[in-house]
Amino acid sequence: MRALVTGGAGFIGSHLIDRLVARGENVVVLDNLSSGDLAFIQHHLDTGRATLVEGDLCSLEDVMGAMALGIDTVYHLAANPDIRLGTRVTDTDLRQGTVATYNVLEAMRLHEVKRIAFASSSVVYGEGAPMPTPEHHGPCMPISLYGASKQAGEGLISSWVGTFGLQAYIFRFANIIGARGTHGVIFDFIHKLKADPTRLEVLGNGLQEKSYMEVGDCVDAILHVMDHSDAPLNLFNLGSHDTASVRQIAEIVVEVTGCTNAAIEYTGGDRGWAGDVPKAMLAIDKMLATGANVRMNSAEAIRHTAKVLLEEIGLE
Amino acid sequence: MRALVTGGAGFIGSHLIDRLVARGENVVVLDNLSSGDLAFIQHHLDTGRATLVEGDLCSLEDVMGAMALGIDTVYHLAANPDIRLGTRVTDTDLRQGTVATYNVLEAMRLHEVKRIAFASSSVVYGEGAPMPTPEHHGPCMPISLYGASKQAGEGLISSWVGTFGLQAYIFRFANIIGARGTHGVIFDFIHKLKADPTRLEVLGNGLQEKSYMEVGDCVDAILHVMDHSDAPLNLFNLGSHDTASVRQIAEIVVEVTGCTNAAIEYTGGDRGWAGDVPKAMLAIDKMLATGANVRMNSAEAIRHTAKVLLEEIGLE
Repeated sequence: MRALVTGGAGFIGSHLIDRLVARGENVVVLDNLSSGDLAFIQHHLDTGRATLVEGDLCSLEDVMGAMALGIDTVYHLAANPDIRLGTRVTDTDLRQGTVATYNVLEAMRLHEVKRIAFASSSVVYGEGAPMPTPEHHGPCMPISLYGASKQAGEGLISSWVGTFGLQAYIFRFANIIGARGTHGVIFDFIHKLKADPTRLEVLGNGLQEKSYMEVGDCVDAILHVMDHSDAPLNLFNLGSHDTASVRQIAEIVVEVTGCTNAAIEYTGGDRGWAGDVPKAMLAIDKMLATGANVRMNSAEAIRHTAKVLLEEIGLE
Repeated sequence: MRALVTGGAGFIGSHLIDRLVARGENVVVLDNLSSGDLAFIQHHLDTGRATLVEGDLCSLEDVMGAMALGIDTVYHLAANPDIRLGTRVTDTDLRQGTVATYNVLEAMRLHEVKRIAFASSSVVYGEGAPMPTPEHHGPCMPISLYGASKQAGEGLISSWVGTFGLQAYIFRFANIIGARGTHGVIFDFIHKLKADPTRLEVLGNGLQEKSYMEVGDCVDAILHVMDHSDAPLNLFNLGSHDTASVRQIAEIVVEVTGCTNAAIEYTGGDRGWAGDVPKAMLAIDKMLATGANVRMNSAEAIRHTAKVLLEEIGLE
C-alpha cells in the first residue's frame, strides 16, 4: 500500500500521515511547502516511511512525477488555506483549488490510480442552509471563492467517477482545529495577543457560530469511513456534535493564554468578512452510522487547540 | 442598455440576440467563432445593432476588451458544446468552461458590471436524481466533465454574488434544440442519414429519455424570468413539460427526412457514452410560476427541429 498525500506537510495532511504510517502504509508527500512545514513530517522522512516530492499542484508535470511512484490511494488535501484571501486575490482558489484538483485527477487517469479521498468543506453549502446541514442539501451555492473551488473540485471528482471509473470519497469538513494549525481563528487570536496582550480584536459581532472538530478526530474519521463505505462515490460530512460562537472562542483563548485582562473588541457586523458564512453546523448522522467516533465537542476541541497552539506559538 | 453575449454567434446565443435586438437593446458579441457562425448574426452586425468582438474567453485580456464597451448585463453562454468530448480530451471543459467563466466574472468585477445570466445545464444534477428534478435537489454530482464545468461555473458565480455583490441568473437548461443547431442528437442523425440514407446508427439502446425545449421557448423564458425575478441569486430550471426517448427522435427524424427505409440500429447499453445521463427531466414549476411559457412539448420541438435542420443541412 502506498498513499499519496497532497499537502502532506500541512496541518491536516501531517496528522493523516501519522495515522497512515501507524497503520503500516508508506506515504508519498506532494507539497510545495508554501503553508506546510517540513518539521511536521520530518520524523517520517527520517525513518523512510514517508518520501517528499517537493512540487506544485498547479504543474501537471509535478503531479505526474509523484503519481508515478506506485500509488494506490490519493488523499488530496492541498489547497490555499486562507478563505479570506479570495476577497482580495481572485485567482488563487481557482489555480490552487480547481486546477490543482484537475491535475491530480488527470495524473491519476494517466497513471491508472483508481481511488481518491478529497478534503471538501462545509462552505460548499453556502448561506442559509438548514442546520444541521445534511449531505443532500441543495442547491449548494457557496459565497466564498474558496467554497467555489471546493465545489468545483467535488464536481471534477464526481465526473471522473462517472466517466473514468474512479472510486472517490468526498469529505465536507467542519472547521478542523488542533496541533500544527497554521491558520484559523484560534491561531489568529493567539498571534494577536502575542502582539498586544491588552486587547483582542474580533472580526464581526462574535455571534458567528460554527462546528469545530479536532484534527485527530477528523483524520480518524476519514480512515474509518474509507474502511466502512465502498460505493463508487462516497460523500460524507465530517464534524462534531455541536457548535461554538466566536465569542466563546475569544473567551477560551483569553483564559488559556492567561491574558485575562485583554479587552475583547468586536468590529461588528454579522460576519468576519464578505464571503464568511456566519452560521454552520453539519449533520453527521451519516458519518456516525459508519461507527466513526468524535471524541471532543466544539468547546473541548477549541480549548485543546488553544493549549497546544499556545505551546507551539508562545506568547513571548 | 448594452448587453454582452458570450458565444453570441452560437446556437442559443444568436437566438437570444434576435430577442434582445427586438427589445431595442444593443449587443456586444464575444465569440471565437470556433463553433458559432457569423451568418447567424450577420443581419444584426449589418444594421449596427450588434458589434462583434472576436476573442477567446480563455484570455482575460480578450474578455476585458469586450467588457470595456459599457456593458450592463452579461449573458454568458459560451462553452464547449460537445459533452462527449470530455471522454477523450479532459481539459477542454476546464478551460472553455470553468476558466472562461472565471475570466468573465473577473472582468465584470474589474469593470464594475453587476448583472449576469449563465447557461448552466440539467447535467449538473448527475445520475439518479428524482424526475422531474427540482432546483433544490442535492447533492449534485455530475458524471460528465462538461457537467463538472457547468457546476464549477455556478459556484464561481454564486461566490461572486456573495463576495462582490453581483446579481446573477443561473439557468439549468434541458436539451435545447431548434434552428441553427450545431450539435446534438437530431443534428447528428441528419448528418448520418445524409452520409448513408439506408441506415441510422443510434448510440445506446434508444431508451434514453430526456426533456427537449425549443430554443425560441428557451430564450423567451430567460428574458421573462429576468424581468420577473429580482433576488441577488436566481436559480431556475428551463425545460418543457415532458420527455422523449432517443428511439422516438430516431423515428421522427427518419420520417421527416423521408428516409423511411433506413434501418435504425442501436449500439446497445443504457447510455450513449460514459458520462451520458440516460434519463433527465427538469421540474419547471419555478419557471412557470413567473408566468414564462413553453409553446412546444418535447415531441413538437423535435419535429420542428428536424424540419428546420433538414433545410439547413440538406440531404444532398
